[in-house]
Amino acid sequence: MKQYNVAVVGAGVVGKTILEILEERKFPVKSLKLLATSRSAGRSMQFKGQEYVIEETSPGSFSGVDLAFFAGGGASKLYAEEAVQRGAVVIDNSSAFRLDPAVPLIVPEVNPEDIKDHQGIIANPNCSTIQMVVALKPLDDAAGLKRVVVSTYQSVSGAGQEAMDELLQQTKELAEGLEPSPQAFPYVIAYNLIPHIDVFLENGYTREEMKMVHETRKMFHNEELAISATTVRVPVLRSHSEALNVETKRKITAEKAREIWAKAPGIKVVDDPKNLLYPMPLLASYQDEVLVGRIREDISCENGLCFFLVADQLRKGAATNAVQIAELLLKYNLL
Amino acid sequence: MKQYNVAVVGAGVVGKTILEILEERKFPVKSLKLLATSRSAGRSMQFKGQEYVIEETSPGSFSGVDLAFFAGGGASKLYAEEAVQRGAVVIDNSSAFRLDPAVPLIVPEVNPEDIKDHQGIIANPNCSTIQMVVALKPLDDAAGLKRVVVSTYQSVSGAGQEAMDELLQQTKELAEGLEPSPQAFPYVIAYNLIPHIDVFLENGYTREEMKMVHETRKMFHNEELAISATTVRVPVLRSHSEALNVETKRKITAEKAREIWAKAPGIKVVDDPKNLLYPMPLLASYQDEVLVGRIREDISCENGLCFFLVADQLRKGAATNAVQIAELLLKYNLL
Repeated sequence: MKQYNVAVVGAGVVGKTILEILEERKFPVKSLKLLATSRSAGRSMQFKGQEYVIEETSPGSFSGVDLAFFAGGGASKLYAEEAVQRGAVVIDNSSAFRLDPAVPLIVPEVNPEDIKDHQGIIANPNCSTIQMVVALKPLDDAAGLKRVVVSTYQSVSGAGQEAMDELLQQTKELAEGLEPSPQAFPYVIAYNLIPHIDVFLENGYTREEMKMVHETRKMFHNEELAISATTVRVPVLRSHSEALNVETKRKITAEKAREIWAKAPGIKVVDDPKNLLYPMPLLASYQDEVLVGRIREDISCENGLCFFLVADQLRKGAATNAVQIAELLLKYNLL
Repeated sequence: MKQYNVAVVGAGVVGKTILEILEERKFPVKSLKLLATSRSAGRSMQFKGQEYVIEETSPGSFSGVDLAFFAGGGASKLYAEEAVQRGAVVIDNSSAFRLDPAVPLIVPEVNPEDIKDHQGIIANPNCSTIQMVVALKPLDDAAGLKRVVVSTYQSVSGAGQEAMDELLQQTKELAEGLEPSPQAFPYVIAYNLIPHIDVFLENGYTREEMKMVHETRKMFHNEELAISATTVRVPVLRSHSEALNVETKRKITAEKAREIWAKAPGIKVVDDPKNLLYPMPLLASYQDEVLVGRIREDISCENGLCFFLVADQLRKGAATNAVQIAELLLKYNLL
């Protein structure tokens, strides 16, 4: 089997998780280069039991690289196009190129074929979008989506390792009667929640909320799809949760939806309330599946379905999806 | 001013908060009797700087009582009717009588006039319902409610003082590397969330979710009102949050809604995202107002409005509303 020269740009929790997933899924890595800002350069990370020293990213870093994973942040705008010019295929977890018509935005369970049009950069969607569309796709195929209303419960790790450390630190400070000083979020997050992720836009939605709208529409090739999102940060360490109310064009019973999801890729139905089984961050963390449960027919509209889903947004919402995109490149002989 | 012989049944966090609110709002208390189960009898609680010893509730406890607050739990079914027979008016925070056609279910900002039909028992709605209907009423008056979709973020204090202690204890145990043993909830709640409050019903909704449906319909005198709720317990100590998507019969702009809410009783508009102002448990706790913000027109439907609201469910969601009901009784000369 052919092996590839791989670079991972970003030394935060997503970069680290990409390394874990590459190893777990036995991606054919010939050589590995770890790149980050000067802040992280010189530190090292593990891959297959070996230490790799992180180098500071520069344009030259991408010479000889076949496949570059950008974990997110400012590096993508600075270096993704440069990497492509030097011959790499880029899988980008930042929002920089997601809505660029020349860039396929891919969730392998949803729109794998779109990858065939790639021109060097392939975008990984926003974490809250990925887990939602994995569940929406089989519904769309079966009954046609009409309107999606989603409220999220997003964990602090969506804001990086510092945010996780800060939540733990704040609970400790509060237990000692100290007043925490928020850094990662505008307010204390311990025992609180914050209905504000990313910046506010003119229409009153946040950019995080509008990402869920625009990215979903792009992947479903349906600019008319009606979606409204409210995104909220909650004091959970890992895994994002979402409450969904979906209207479909044709009636779909809860029983039928459960059946469809049970057979759908990337989904694990966790829906046995009598035995206290429903999706929770506790169950989803460190898993690759999107857990779907609390499935019920919506009593407030025709052809409505309610459900609750949880996924590890560092894995399926970022790293796992990125590595699955790389696997798609292999499958279609695009690398 | 006439003064009243008052009894408070229940020595938990709601009972304690009722005492605080009676004192704060200077309710005309002539005598005060604290009642609870044998477990709490003998302990004491403070009211206006005096200690009151808790007595074990018995049928005879209500002789001479003008007004009895039942804080919730099993006592209502056992003693509420007995208290009425002995001449007391009962304000009941349990779910026992809420849907009884002979019992008015009252939120003073919503349906004050309904109290005039009372036959001894007046019910206080469920906490998540109260804060929602305070915000829905002015919208219904202005534009006519068509459909309400709500997802809740409910704090642990909704399950009592033990649940608050347990959340604090669990975070401490996790920090020490210990495995917590959940008591108040089916799973660990620290850094997790649980999409399960009260029991599951045949239609897949929980009883907590259906309370929001049935109680709202009763107070709005509209059994056709379309409502769907998803209720979720989050690791927040105090105050419940709710994300709402509301469709109205007539168009209402975000600007107009903001204006209406600014003038509505019991509501504080906290909606200045540019200055990072939006409702959060941190801001709502120990307040009586329902904080409403994140107000925006719903991009996914005609005549839709999204907003986020937070209220201290121990105060407006329980104790404050109960004392406001008592004040209504005085206002209408019903006591």
